[in-house]
Amino acid sequence: MTQTDAGWVKIVGLGPGNETMVTAQVQEVLAEATDVVGYIPYVKRIPERPGLTLHATDNRIEIERATHALEMAASGKRVAVVSSGDPGVFAMASAVFEALEAGKPEWLNLNIQVLPGITAMLAASARIGAPMGHDFAAINLSDNLKPWSLIEKRLRLAGEAGFAMGFYNPRSKSRPHQFGRALEILREACGGETLISFARDVSKPGETITTVTLDEATPEMADMRTVVIVGNADTRRVGRHVYTPRFAKEG
Amino acid sequence: MTQTDAGWVKIVGLGPGNETMVTAQVQEVLAEATDVVGYIPYVKRIPERPGLTLHATDNRIEIERATHALEMAASGKRVAVVSSGDPGVFAMASAVFEALEAGKPEWLNLNIQVLPGITAMLAASARIGAPMGHDFAAINLSDNLKPWSLIEKRLRLAGEAGFAMGFYNPRSKSRPHQFGRALEILREACGGETLISFARDVSKPGETITTVTLDEATPEMADMRTVVIVGNADTRRVGRHVYTPRFAKEG
Repeated sequence: MTQTDAGWVKIVGLGPGNETMVTAQVQEVLAEATDVVGYIPYVKRIPERPGLTLHATDNRIEIERATHALEMAASGKRVAVVSSGDPGVFAMASAVFEALEAGKPEWLNLNIQVLPGITAMLAASARIGAPMGHDFAAINLSDNLKPWSLIEKRLRLAGEAGFAMGFYNPRSKSRPHQFGRALEILREACGGETLISFARDVSKPGETITTVTLDEATPEMADMRTVVIVGNADTRRVGRHVYTPRFAKEG
Repeated sequence: MTQTDAGWVKIVGLGPGNETMVTAQVQEVLAEATDVVGYIPYVKRIPERPGLTLHATDNRIEIERATHALEMAASGKRVAVVSSGDPGVFAMASAVFEALEAGKPEWLNLNIQVLPGITAMLAASARIGAPMGHDFAAINLSDNLKPWSLIEKRLRLAGEAGFAMGFYNPRSKSRPHQFGRALEILREACGGETLISFARDVSKPGETITTVTLDEATPEMADMRTVVIVGNADTRRVGRHVYTPRFAKEG
């Protein structure tokens, strides 16, 4: 296989699920690609067409998938790596750069681009109102790639800082107790009256949005299809909406 | 003026500037609106057409603009409130809910929706590589609406937590010294070898991306058209790209 200038890897964000939330520049990449690489449910969103090969792979093999994309690009293919949401937020962009770092030196000359998408946290925020309208933090609650103790530390410090927070991967079957522990820490760090919203299947059929206080929140309110958003001390309800004011007093 | 069910307020994100980064659902709202309300440079992005009235207003009168949008919707108009980036991130969505809270009780029944856009921080992140590929915080460095002491506290705590960080409104003519102070705090909290990227006019003509270490960074590298991104201790270069790995060790 000879490397050609024609090959590329474009890591694109498909947004939270609704096809009207995909940008035109991502649609264009998908129209030009010879190969699409990604996790099974995301690749399912790509319509088949002549000249396009779909490579759907299972979860937790992100590095193998990224390496495969780089290999194909080096052989002249135009490869779209698809993520839901934004590829730069707990998704495939970092995995591709990890594979690039561990890969063949000549891959450093490949045309690699990241094209953003609407990330789940901000899609959820929009449906809730404007809970991220002030300073905020985004935390992946999965301990697959970092120790749980670091997650606890970050929850405490983000609470102390007065950040609103968005949580990705809040709860899975393999670690059912951790999200309950996260809620305990948040009650201590933020106060039990702080609002917390559970946004499930955002922008998809069956979307549900539930807002309660931290005192009222239970672990069962979240699963892996849920994005969780915690407000800051000023976050409040107005009518059907939940928002965080733009201003803040001394912290 | 009689309130009719036909009126609405949709607060929409135009993305960072490039028209191919606007979602189809936002384009549809703009096609259906009778009125567009927003800050002058954002309203300039909306093409004129028969039946559409453009209301471009100056900066720093967000509440007046939001109240005007709610008044028009109550009288049956279909009002698009436009923000650059994402309206829920340091933009018009919170201002509309503030105006709703302070406004007429009957406005609570209005159809108000927020439609997300690509926020500047994540557009910049994509152009840089994947610097927000792990847990991160977003901080507005302007002290128009909060005390500077709170910003300093948040910088320190975000550094201690090991968050990558994205900064909006890093520097303006009215407060030229604060960004230098922010850089000092970041050097102390994160270490001088940490990478910092300055992304100016992202996705627009003349876009520039510069990455240096915190020790090398100077206040003049940022202005109000710049988004600043600071990595965490693991953020590194690979070829032309800067990325943060998905994994982390004990913090």
